[in-house]
Amino acid sequence: MNNKPLILVSNDDGITAPGLKTLVEVVKKIGRVVVVAPDGPQSGMGHAITLNKPLRLEKVNVFGPEVEAYQTSGTPVDCVKLAIDKLLISKPDLMVSGINHGNNSSINVIYSGTMSAAVEAAIDGMQAIGFSLCDYAYEANFEPCKSYIEKICLNLLENPLPYGTLLNVNFPKTNTIQGVKICRQASATWEESFDERTDPYGRKYYWMVGNFINRDNGQDTDVYALENNYVSVVPTQFDLTDHKAIYTLNNWKL
Amino acid sequence: MNNKPLILVSNDDGITAPGLKTLVEVVKKIGRVVVVAPDGPQSGMGHAITLNKPLRLEKVNVFGPEVEAYQTSGTPVDCVKLAIDKLLISKPDLMVSGINHGNNSSINVIYSGTMSAAVEAAIDGMQAIGFSLCDYAYEANFEPCKSYIEKICLNLLENPLPYGTLLNVNFPKTNTIQGVKICRQASATWEESFDERTDPYGRKYYWMVGNFINRDNGQDTDVYALENNYVSVVPTQFDLTDHKAIYTLNNWKL
Repeated sequence: MNNKPLILVSNDDGITAPGLKTLVEVVKKIGRVVVVAPDGPQSGMGHAITLNKPLRLEKVNVFGPEVEAYQTSGTPVDCVKLAIDKLLISKPDLMVSGINHGNNSSINVIYSGTMSAAVEAAIDGMQAIGFSLCDYAYEANFEPCKSYIEKICLNLLENPLPYGTLLNVNFPKTNTIQGVKICRQASATWEESFDERTDPYGRKYYWMVGNFINRDNGQDTDVYALENNYVSVVPTQFDLTDHKAIYTLNNWKL
Repeated sequence: MNNKPLILVSNDDGITAPGLKTLVEVVKKIGRVVVVAPDGPQSGMGHAITLNKPLRLEKVNVFGPEVEAYQTSGTPVDCVKLAIDKLLISKPDLMVSGINHGNNSSINVIYSGTMSAAVEAAIDGMQAIGFSLCDYAYEANFEPCKSYIEKICLNLLENPLPYGTLLNVNFPKTNTIQGVKICRQASATWEESFDERTDPYGRKYYWMVGNFINRDNGQDTDVYALENNYVSVVPTQFDLTDHKAIYTLNNWKL
Protein backbone atom coordinates (compact mmCIF):
# COMPACT_ATOMS: atom_id res chain seq x y z
CA MET A 1 0.00 0.00 0.00
CA ASN A 2 2.80 2.41 0.89
CA ASN A 3 4.51 1.66 -2.43
CA LYS A 4 1.75 3.45 -4.26
CA PRO A 5 3.04 6.65 -5.86
CA LEU A 6 2.35 9.93 -4.08
CA ILE A 7 0.39 12.27 -6.34
CA LEU A 8 -0.07 15.99 -5.71
CA VAL A 9 -3.10 17.56 -7.39
CA SER A 10 -3.92 21.24 -7.93
CA ASN A 11 -5.81 23.45 -10.37
CA ASP A 12 -6.74 27.07 -11.03
CA ASP A 13 -10.54 26.84 -11.06
CA GLY A 14 -10.63 26.25 -7.31
CA ILE A 15 -11.22 23.41 -4.87
CA THR A 16 -14.90 22.90 -5.84
CA ALA A 17 -14.42 22.74 -9.64
CA PRO A 18 -15.85 19.64 -11.36
CA GLY A 19 -12.67 19.31 -13.44
CA LEU A 20 -10.60 18.88 -10.27
CA LYS A 21 -13.07 16.28 -8.95
CA THR A 22 -12.72 14.27 -12.17
CA LEU A 23 -8.92 14.42 -12.03
CA VAL A 24 -8.92 13.22 -8.40
CA GLU A 25 -11.25 10.32 -9.31
CA VAL A 26 -8.78 9.16 -11.96
CA VAL A 27 -5.52 9.53 -10.06
CA LYS A 28 -6.74 8.01 -6.81
CA LYS A 29 -6.85 4.70 -8.70
CA ILE A 30 -3.11 5.09 -9.34
CA GLY A 31 -1.71 6.40 -6.06
CA ARG A 32 -2.05 8.21 -2.75
CA VAL A 33 -3.51 11.62 -3.46
CA VAL A 34 -3.01 14.99 -1.77
CA VAL A 35 -4.97 17.94 -3.15
CA VAL A 36 -3.91 21.55 -2.54
CA ALA A 37 -6.08 23.94 -4.53
CA PRO A 38 -7.13 27.60 -4.44
CA ASP A 39 -10.23 28.44 -2.37
CA GLY A 40 -11.73 30.25 -5.38
CA PRO A 41 -11.20 30.77 -9.12
CA GLN A 42 -7.66 31.77 -10.15
CA SER A 43 -7.92 31.55 -13.93
CA GLY A 44 -5.46 33.63 -15.90
CA MET A 45 -3.13 34.00 -12.91
CA GLY A 46 -0.15 32.75 -14.92
CA HIS A 47 2.89 32.16 -12.75
CA ALA A 48 1.81 34.71 -10.12
CA ILE A 49 2.97 34.24 -6.54
CA THR A 50 1.72 36.02 -3.43
CA LEU A 51 4.44 38.22 -1.93
CA ASN A 52 2.63 41.18 -0.41
CA LYS A 53 0.04 39.48 1.76
CA PRO A 54 -0.10 36.41 4.00
CA LEU A 55 -1.64 33.13 2.87
CA ARG A 56 -4.24 30.90 4.49
CA LEU A 57 -4.14 27.11 4.31
CA GLU A 58 -7.03 24.98 5.58
CA LYS A 59 -7.75 21.27 5.57
CA VAL A 60 -11.09 20.48 3.91
CA ASN A 61 -13.15 17.35 3.35
CA VAL A 62 -14.21 17.55 -0.26
CA PHE A 63 -13.15 14.26 -1.85
CA GLY A 64 -13.98 11.76 0.91
CA PRO A 65 -11.79 10.19 3.59
CA GLU A 66 -9.22 8.61 1.21
CA VAL A 67 -8.08 11.95 -0.19
CA GLU A 68 -6.23 14.51 1.93
CA ALA A 69 -7.33 17.94 0.70
CA TYR A 70 -6.46 21.56 1.48
CA GLN A 71 -7.60 24.92 0.21
CA THR A 72 -5.43 28.02 0.15
CA SER A 73 -6.06 31.72 -0.36
CA GLY A 74 -3.14 31.80 -2.82
CA THR A 75 -2.50 31.32 -6.51
CA PRO A 76 -1.98 27.91 -8.18
CA VAL A 77 1.80 28.36 -7.85
CA ASP A 78 1.41 29.22 -4.15
CA CYS A 79 -0.52 25.93 -3.73
CA VAL A 80 2.43 23.90 -4.98
CA LYS A 81 4.92 25.84 -2.85
CA LEU A 82 2.78 25.46 0.29
CA ALA A 83 2.32 21.73 -0.38
CA ILE A 84 6.06 21.19 -0.58
CA ASP A 85 7.06 23.34 2.38
CA LYS A 86 4.18 22.79 4.80
CA LEU A 87 2.32 19.59 3.97
CA LEU A 88 4.33 16.86 2.28
CA ILE A 89 7.09 14.87 3.95
CA SER A 90 8.40 13.36 0.70
CA LYS A 91 8.53 14.72 -2.83
CA PRO A 92 5.51 13.58 -4.89
CA ASP A 93 6.18 11.04 -7.64
CA LEU A 94 3.78 12.96 -9.83
CA MET A 95 2.03 16.32 -9.85
CA VAL A 96 -1.11 16.81 -11.92
CA SER A 97 -3.01 20.05 -12.46
CA GLY A 98 -6.56 20.53 -13.75
CA ILE A 99 -8.66 19.40 -15.40
CA ASN A 100 -8.94 23.02 -16.47
CA HIS A 101 -12.30 24.26 -17.67
CA GLY A 102 -10.96 25.77 -20.89
CA ASN A 103 -8.28 25.59 -23.54
CA ASN A 104 -4.59 25.86 -22.53
CA SER A 105 -3.08 25.03 -25.90
CA SER A 106 -0.82 27.38 -27.86
CA ILE A 107 -0.05 30.77 -26.26
CA ASN A 108 -2.63 30.10 -23.52
CA VAL A 109 0.09 28.14 -21.72
CA ILE A 110 1.63 31.51 -20.78
CA TYR A 111 -1.51 32.87 -19.07
CA SER A 112 -2.69 29.61 -17.53
CA GLY A 113 -2.75 29.10 -13.77
CA THR A 114 -3.29 25.37 -14.38
CA MET A 115 -0.08 25.07 -16.37
CA SER A 116 1.83 27.36 -14.01
CA ALA A 117 1.10 25.03 -11.09
CA ALA A 118 2.52 22.17 -13.17
CA VAL A 119 5.52 24.28 -14.24
CA GLU A 120 6.22 25.13 -10.60
CA ALA A 121 6.16 21.42 -9.71
CA ALA A 122 8.57 20.70 -12.58
CA ILE A 123 10.91 23.49 -11.41
CA ASP A 124 10.89 21.69 -8.06
CA GLY A 125 11.93 18.46 -9.76
CA MET A 126 8.62 16.63 -9.99
CA GLN A 127 7.15 14.82 -12.96
CA ALA A 128 4.26 17.11 -13.84
CA ILE A 129 1.27 17.33 -16.18
CA GLY A 130 -1.34 20.01 -16.79
CA PHE A 131 -4.70 18.77 -18.14
CA SER A 132 -7.26 21.01 -19.83
CA LEU A 133 -10.54 20.48 -21.66
CA CYS A 134 -11.47 22.88 -24.47
CA ASP A 135 -14.82 23.65 -22.86
CA TYR A 136 -15.24 26.65 -20.53
CA ALA A 137 -18.59 25.47 -19.11
CA TYR A 138 -18.91 24.62 -15.41
CA GLU A 139 -20.88 21.51 -16.41
CA ALA A 140 -18.43 20.43 -19.16
CA ASN A 141 -18.33 16.68 -19.88
CA PHE A 142 -15.00 15.36 -18.57
CA GLU A 143 -15.89 11.64 -19.03
CA PRO A 144 -14.07 11.15 -22.36
CA CYS A 145 -10.83 12.49 -20.80
CA LYS A 146 -10.58 9.88 -18.04
CA SER A 147 -9.01 6.91 -19.79
CA TYR A 148 -6.46 9.15 -21.51
CA ILE A 149 -5.46 10.82 -18.24
CA GLU A 150 -4.87 7.43 -16.66
CA LYS A 151 -2.76 6.22 -19.60
CA ILE A 152 -0.68 9.41 -19.74
CA CYS A 153 -0.02 9.39 -15.97
CA LEU A 154 0.99 5.72 -16.01
CA ASN A 155 3.32 6.29 -18.96
CA LEU A 156 4.99 9.22 -17.22
CA LEU A 157 5.43 7.31 -13.96
CA GLU A 158 7.03 4.48 -15.92
CA ASN A 159 9.16 6.72 -18.17
CA PRO A 160 10.08 9.81 -16.15
CA LEU A 161 11.17 12.80 -18.22
CA PRO A 162 14.50 14.54 -17.60
CA TYR A 163 14.59 17.61 -15.31
CA GLY A 164 13.17 20.62 -17.11
CA THR A 165 10.37 18.94 -19.07
CA LEU A 166 6.67 18.60 -18.22
CA LEU A 167 3.52 17.94 -20.25
CA ASN A 168 0.73 20.22 -21.43
CA VAL A 169 -2.25 18.00 -22.30
CA ASN A 170 -5.41 19.41 -23.89
CA PHE A 171 -8.61 17.53 -24.70
CA PRO A 172 -10.91 18.45 -27.59
CA LYS A 173 -14.56 19.12 -26.80
CA THR A 174 -15.99 15.96 -28.33
CA ASN A 175 -17.36 12.56 -27.43
CA THR A 176 -15.36 10.92 -30.21
CA ILE A 177 -11.69 11.49 -29.44
CA GLN A 178 -9.55 10.24 -32.35
CA GLY A 179 -6.40 9.46 -30.34
CA VAL A 180 -3.33 11.32 -29.05
CA LYS A 181 -0.84 13.53 -30.94
CA ILE A 182 2.53 14.69 -29.61
CA CYS A 183 2.68 18.33 -30.72
CA ARG A 184 4.49 21.64 -30.57
CA GLN A 185 2.89 24.82 -29.22
CA ALA A 186 1.14 26.67 -32.05
CA SER A 187 2.28 30.26 -32.67
CA ALA A 188 -0.91 32.18 -31.97
CA THR A 189 -2.02 35.26 -30.05
CA TRP A 190 -5.01 36.88 -28.44
CA GLU A 191 -6.09 40.07 -30.18
CA GLU A 192 -6.65 42.50 -27.34
CA SER A 193 -10.05 43.96 -26.88
CA PHE A 194 -11.65 45.68 -23.91
CA ASP A 195 -15.33 46.23 -23.43
CA GLU A 196 -15.65 49.85 -22.24
CA ARG A 197 -18.47 50.65 -19.80
CA THR A 198 -19.48 53.46 -17.44
CA ASP A 199 -20.10 52.85 -13.74
CA PRO A 200 -23.04 54.39 -11.79
CA TYR A 201 -20.72 57.27 -10.81
CA GLY A 202 -19.87 58.16 -14.40
CA ARG A 203 -16.36 56.69 -14.38
CA LYS A 204 -15.17 54.40 -17.16
CA TYR A 205 -14.15 50.80 -16.56
CA TYR A 206 -13.00 47.99 -18.84
CA TRP A 207 -13.61 44.24 -19.11
CA MET A 208 -11.03 42.20 -20.92
CA VAL A 209 -12.37 40.19 -23.85
CA GLY A 210 -10.40 39.00 -26.88
CA ASN A 211 -10.19 36.99 -30.06
CA PHE A 212 -7.85 34.05 -30.50
CA ILE A 213 -5.82 34.45 -33.70
CA ASN A 214 -3.91 31.42 -34.99
CA ARG A 215 -1.48 32.32 -37.77
CA ASP A 216 0.30 28.95 -37.60
CA ASN A 217 -0.60 26.57 -40.43
CA GLY A 218 1.56 23.70 -39.16
CA GLN A 219 -0.05 20.28 -38.89
CA ASP A 220 2.25 19.41 -35.97
CA THR A 221 0.70 21.96 -33.58
CA ASP A 222 -1.58 21.49 -30.59
CA VAL A 223 -4.23 23.71 -32.19
CA TYR A 224 -4.32 21.52 -35.31
CA ALA A 225 -4.56 18.31 -33.25
CA LEU A 226 -7.45 19.68 -31.18
CA GLU A 227 -9.31 20.95 -34.26
CA ASN A 228 -9.14 17.39 -35.57
CA ASN A 229 -10.44 15.90 -32.30
CA TYR A 230 -7.11 14.54 -31.10
CA VAL A 231 -5.74 14.93 -27.59
CA SER A 232 -2.70 17.25 -27.82
CA VAL A 233 0.39 16.53 -25.71
CA VAL A 234 3.07 19.24 -25.79
CA PRO A 235 6.36 18.63 -23.98
CA THR A 236 6.89 21.94 -22.18
CA GLN A 237 9.97 23.61 -20.69
CA PHE A 238 10.80 26.60 -18.50
CA ASP A 239 14.21 27.48 -19.93
CA LEU A 240 13.07 30.58 -21.80
CA THR A 241 16.49 31.20 -23.38
CA ASP A 242 16.29 31.63 -27.14
CA HIS A 243 19.60 29.82 -27.63
CA LYS A 244 19.82 30.46 -31.37
CA ALA A 245 19.65 34.24 -30.82
CA ILE A 246 22.80 34.28 -28.67
CA TYR A 247 25.04 34.28 -31.75
CA THR A 248 23.17 37.23 -33.30
CA LEU A 249 23.42 39.28 -30.12
CA ASN A 250 27.14 38.63 -29.78
CA ASN A 251 27.56 40.76 -32.92
CA TRP A 252 26.00 43.80 -31.27
CA LYS A 253 28.27 46.62 -30.11
CA LEU A 254 27.52 46.86 -26.39
CA MET B 1 9.99 65.09 -34.85
CA ASN B 2 7.27 62.57 -35.79
CA ASN B 3 9.91 60.20 -37.10
CA LYS B 4 11.08 59.55 -33.56
CA PRO B 5 10.32 55.98 -32.52
CA LEU B 6 7.24 55.38 -30.36
CA ILE B 7 8.26 53.72 -27.09
CA LEU B 8 5.80 52.08 -24.68
CA VAL B 9 7.02 51.82 -21.07
CA SER B 10 5.63 49.72 -18.23
CA ASN B 11 6.82 48.00 -15.05
CA ASP B 12 5.59 45.90 -12.14
CA ASP B 13 6.63 48.12 -9.22
CA GLY B 14 3.96 50.68 -10.06
CA ILE B 15 3.72 54.14 -11.60
CA THR B 16 5.62 55.90 -8.77
CA ALA B 17 8.66 53.55 -8.66
CA PRO B 18 12.07 55.24 -9.03
CA GLY B 19 13.15 52.49 -11.45
CA LEU B 20 10.36 53.46 -13.86
CA LYS B 21 11.30 57.13 -13.56
CA THR B 22 14.91 56.32 -14.51
CA LEU B 23 13.82 54.24 -17.49
CA VAL B 24 11.57 57.06 -18.74
CA GLU B 25 14.43 59.56 -18.39
CA VAL B 26 16.62 57.41 -20.64
CA VAL B 27 14.12 56.48 -23.35
CA LYS B 28 12.63 59.96 -23.74
CA LYS B 29 16.00 60.95 -25.25
CA ILE B 30 15.40 58.30 -27.93
CA GLY B 31 11.73 58.62 -28.82
CA ARG B 32 8.16 59.62 -28.04
CA VAL B 33 7.22 57.91 -24.77
CA VAL B 34 3.88 56.57 -23.51
CA VAL B 35 3.85 55.04 -20.01
CA VAL B 36 1.14 52.61 -18.89
CA ALA B 37 1.93 51.18 -15.46
CA PRO B 38 0.11 49.61 -12.53
CA ASP B 39 -1.28 51.98 -9.88
CA GLY B 40 0.51 49.96 -7.17
CA PRO B 41 3.10 47.22 -6.72
CA GLN B 42 2.54 44.07 -8.82
CA SER B 43 5.76 42.18 -8.15
CA GLY B 44 5.63 38.43 -8.62
CA MET B 45 2.48 38.64 -10.73
CA GLY B 46 4.07 36.59 -13.52
CA HIS B 47 1.92 36.55 -16.65
CA ALA B 48 -1.32 37.11 -14.74
CA ILE B 49 -4.21 38.84 -16.51
CA THR B 50 -7.39 40.22 -14.97
CA LEU B 51 -10.42 38.26 -16.13
CA ASN B 52 -12.85 38.33 -13.22
CA LYS B 53 -13.04 42.02 -12.45
CA PRO B 54 -13.11 45.26 -14.44
CA LEU B 55 -10.07 47.43 -14.91
CA ARG B 56 -9.54 51.14 -14.35
CA LEU B 57 -7.34 53.29 -16.59
CA GLU B 58 -6.52 56.90 -15.68
CA LYS B 59 -4.32 59.56 -17.23
CA VAL B 60 -1.76 60.90 -14.76
CA ASN B 61 0.88 63.63 -14.81
CA VAL B 62 3.93 61.99 -13.28
CA PHE B 63 6.73 62.51 -15.78
CA GLY B 64 6.07 66.08 -16.95
CA PRO B 65 4.27 67.37 -20.05
CA GLU B 66 6.46 65.57 -22.62
CA VAL B 67 5.48 62.09 -21.44
CA GLU B 68 1.94 60.73 -21.78
CA ALA B 69 1.32 58.54 -18.74
CA TYR B 70 -1.49 56.32 -17.47
CA GLN B 71 -2.04 54.16 -14.42
CA THR B 72 -4.21 51.06 -14.39
CA SER B 73 -5.66 48.85 -11.66
CA GLY B 74 -4.43 45.79 -13.56
CA THR B 75 -1.35 43.61 -13.80
CA PRO B 76 1.74 44.44 -15.92
CA VAL B 77 0.32 42.28 -18.75
CA ASP B 78 -3.03 44.11 -18.51
CA CYS B 79 -1.11 47.40 -18.91
CA VAL B 80 0.32 46.30 -22.26
CA LYS B 81 -3.05 44.98 -23.47
CA LEU B 82 -4.85 48.20 -22.46
CA ALA B 83 -2.17 50.31 -24.13
CA ILE B 84 -2.59 48.49 -27.42
CA ASP B 85 -6.38 48.34 -27.46
CA LYS B 86 -7.35 51.64 -25.84
CA LEU B 87 -4.49 54.13 -26.04
CA LEU B 88 -2.12 53.73 -28.97
CA ILE B 89 -3.01 54.41 -32.58
CA SER B 90 0.10 52.73 -33.98
CA LYS B 91 2.18 49.80 -32.76
CA PRO B 92 5.16 50.97 -30.68
CA ASP B 93 8.59 50.58 -32.25
CA LEU B 94 9.87 49.45 -28.86
CA MET B 95 8.46 48.35 -25.52
CA VAL B 96 10.59 48.57 -22.39
CA SER B 97 9.69 47.33 -18.93
CA GLY B 98 11.29 48.23 -15.59
CA ILE B 99 13.73 49.13 -14.30
CA ASN B 100 12.69 46.45 -11.85
CA HIS B 101 13.78 46.87 -8.23
CA GLY B 102 15.23 43.36 -7.95
CA ASN B 103 16.81 40.47 -9.79
CA ASN B 104 14.99 38.87 -12.75
CA SER B 105 17.80 36.61 -13.91
CA SER B 106 17.57 32.83 -14.06
CA ILE B 107 14.23 31.26 -12.99
CA ASN B 108 13.01 34.66 -11.72
CA VAL B 109 12.00 35.39 -15.31
CA ILE B 110 9.03 33.04 -14.76
CA TYR B 111 7.66 34.92 -11.73
CA SER B 112 8.47 38.42 -12.90
CA GLY B 113 5.76 40.91 -13.73
CA THR B 114 8.40 43.14 -15.35
CA MET B 115 9.41 40.42 -17.78
CA SER B 116 5.81 39.33 -18.38
CA ALA B 117 4.91 42.83 -19.58
CA ALA B 118 7.82 42.60 -22.04
CA VAL B 119 6.82 39.05 -23.06
CA GLU B 120 3.26 40.27 -23.71
CA ALA B 121 4.60 43.06 -25.93
CA ALA B 122 6.72 40.53 -27.83
CA ILE B 123 3.71 38.22 -28.30
CA ASP B 124 2.01 41.25 -29.83
CA GLY B 125 4.88 41.67 -32.27
CA MET B 126 6.85 44.47 -30.62
CA GLN B 127 10.58 44.67 -30.01
CA ALA B 128 10.71 44.35 -26.23
CA ILE B 129 13.17 44.50 -23.35
CA GLY B 130 12.80 43.95 -19.61
CA PHE B 131 15.36 45.77 -17.43
CA SER B 132 16.10 44.84 -13.81
CA LEU B 133 18.64 45.92 -11.20
CA CYS B 134 19.79 43.35 -8.63
CA ASP B 135 18.87 45.63 -5.75
CA TYR B 136 15.46 45.39 -4.06
CA ALA B 137 15.74 48.74 -2.27
CA TYR B 138 13.33 51.57 -3.09
CA GLU B 139 16.30 53.96 -3.12
CA ALA B 140 18.51 51.69 -5.29
CA ASN B 141 21.11 53.51 -7.40
CA PHE B 142 19.99 53.25 -11.04
CA GLU B 143 22.59 55.74 -12.40
CA PRO B 144 25.12 53.11 -13.60
CA CYS B 145 22.37 51.42 -15.69
CA LYS B 146 21.52 54.46 -17.81
CA SER B 147 24.20 54.40 -20.51
CA TYR B 148 23.74 50.65 -21.01
CA ILE B 149 19.97 50.97 -21.36
CA GLU B 150 20.42 53.62 -24.02
CA LYS B 151 22.94 51.50 -25.95
CA ILE B 152 20.81 48.35 -25.78
CA CYS B 153 17.64 50.17 -26.90
CA LEU B 154 19.45 51.83 -29.81
CA ASN B 155 20.96 48.49 -30.89
CA LEU B 156 17.57 46.81 -30.83
CA LEU B 157 15.89 49.61 -32.79
CA GLU B 158 18.66 49.33 -35.39
CA ASN B 159 18.72 45.51 -35.46
CA PRO B 160 15.19 44.28 -34.75
CA LEU B 161 14.96 40.66 -33.57
CA PRO B 162 12.72 38.15 -35.35
CA TYR B 163 9.20 37.53 -34.00
CA GLY B 164 9.32 35.43 -30.85
CA THR B 165 12.47 36.89 -29.26
CA LEU B 166 12.85 39.60 -26.62
CA LEU B 167 15.58 40.58 -24.17
CA ASN B 168 15.93 40.04 -20.42
CA VAL B 169 18.54 42.51 -19.17
CA ASN B 170 19.80 42.47 -15.56
CA PHE B 171 22.24 44.90 -13.96
CA PRO B 172 24.60 43.94 -11.14
CA LYS B 173 24.46 45.99 -7.94
CA THR B 174 27.76 47.80 -8.39
CA ASN B 175 29.22 51.14 -9.37
CA THR B 176 31.89 49.43 -11.47
CA ILE B 177 30.08 47.52 -14.22
CA GLN B 178 32.60 45.45 -16.19
CA GLY B 179 30.66 45.33 -19.48
CA VAL B 180 27.89 43.29 -21.10
CA LYS B 181 27.61 39.49 -21.51
CA ILE B 182 25.11 37.71 -23.76
CA CYS B 183 23.96 34.75 -21.62
CA ARG B 184 21.62 31.84 -21.19
CA GLN B 185 19.17 31.57 -18.29
CA ALA B 186 20.87 29.76 -15.37
CA SER B 187 19.12 26.61 -14.14
CA ALA B 188 18.26 27.59 -10.57
CA THR B 189 15.28 27.43 -8.23
CA TRP B 190 13.81 29.00 -5.13
CA GLU B 191 13.72 26.65 -2.17
CA GLU B 192 10.26 27.12 -0.77
CA SER B 193 9.87 28.36 2.71
CA PHE B 194 6.92 29.89 4.54
CA ASP B 195 7.11 31.86 7.73
CA GLU B 196 4.24 30.52 9.89
CA ARG B 197 2.50 32.99 12.25
CA THR B 198 -0.68 33.18 14.28
CA ASP B 199 -3.18 36.02 13.86
CA PRO B 200 -4.89 37.82 16.79
CA TYR B 201 -7.81 35.36 16.45
CA GLY B 202 -5.60 32.27 16.85
CA ARG B 203 -5.62 31.26 13.19
CA LYS B 204 -2.43 30.40 11.33
CA TYR B 205 -1.18 32.36 8.34
CA TYR B 206 1.91 32.14 6.15
CA TRP B 207 4.31 34.60 4.55
CA MET B 208 6.30 33.40 1.57
CA VAL B 209 10.05 33.66 1.95
CA GLY B 210 12.68 31.56 0.19
CA ASN B 211 16.29 30.85 -0.66
CA PHE B 212 17.69 31.10 -4.16
CA ILE B 213 19.56 27.90 -5.06
CA ASN B 214 21.81 27.95 -8.12
CA ARG B 215 22.97 24.47 -9.13
CA ASP B 216 24.26 25.66 -12.51
CA ASN B 217 28.06 25.98 -12.71
CA GLY B 218 28.09 27.25 -16.30
CA GLN B 219 30.12 30.38 -17.01
CA ASP B 220 27.72 31.30 -19.83
CA THR B 221 24.77 31.99 -17.50
CA ASP B 222 23.15 35.24 -16.40
CA VAL B 223 23.85 34.44 -12.75
CA TYR B 224 27.57 34.03 -13.45
CA ALA B 225 27.72 37.28 -15.42
CA LEU B 226 26.00 39.22 -12.64
CA GLU B 227 28.22 37.71 -9.94
CA ASN B 228 31.17 39.03 -11.91
CA ASN B 229 29.67 42.53 -12.23
CA TYR B 230 28.66 42.22 -15.89
CA VAL B 231 25.29 43.26 -17.31
CA SER B 232 23.50 40.04 -18.38
CA VAL B 233 21.47 40.00 -21.60
CA VAL B 234 19.42 36.84 -22.19
CA PRO B 235 17.53 36.44 -25.47
CA THR B 236 14.16 35.17 -24.26
CA GLN B 237 11.34 33.33 -26.01
CA PHE B 238 7.73 32.31 -25.30
CA ASP B 239 7.59 29.08 -27.31
CA LEU B 240 7.67 26.74 -24.32
CA THR B 241 7.81 23.59 -26.46
CA ASP B 242 10.63 21.27 -25.47
CA HIS B 243 11.25 20.29 -29.09
CA LYS B 244 13.85 17.62 -28.32
CA ALA B 245 11.37 15.72 -26.10
CA ILE B 246 8.88 15.21 -28.95
CA TYR B 247 10.84 12.22 -30.26
CA THR B 248 10.90 10.55 -26.80
CA LEU B 249 7.16 10.99 -26.34
CA ASN B 250 6.38 9.55 -29.75
CA ASN B 251 7.64 6.22 -28.37
CA TRP B 252 5.00 6.19 -25.63
CA LYS B 253 1.99 3.89 -26.03
CA LEU B 254 -0.94 6.31 -25.86
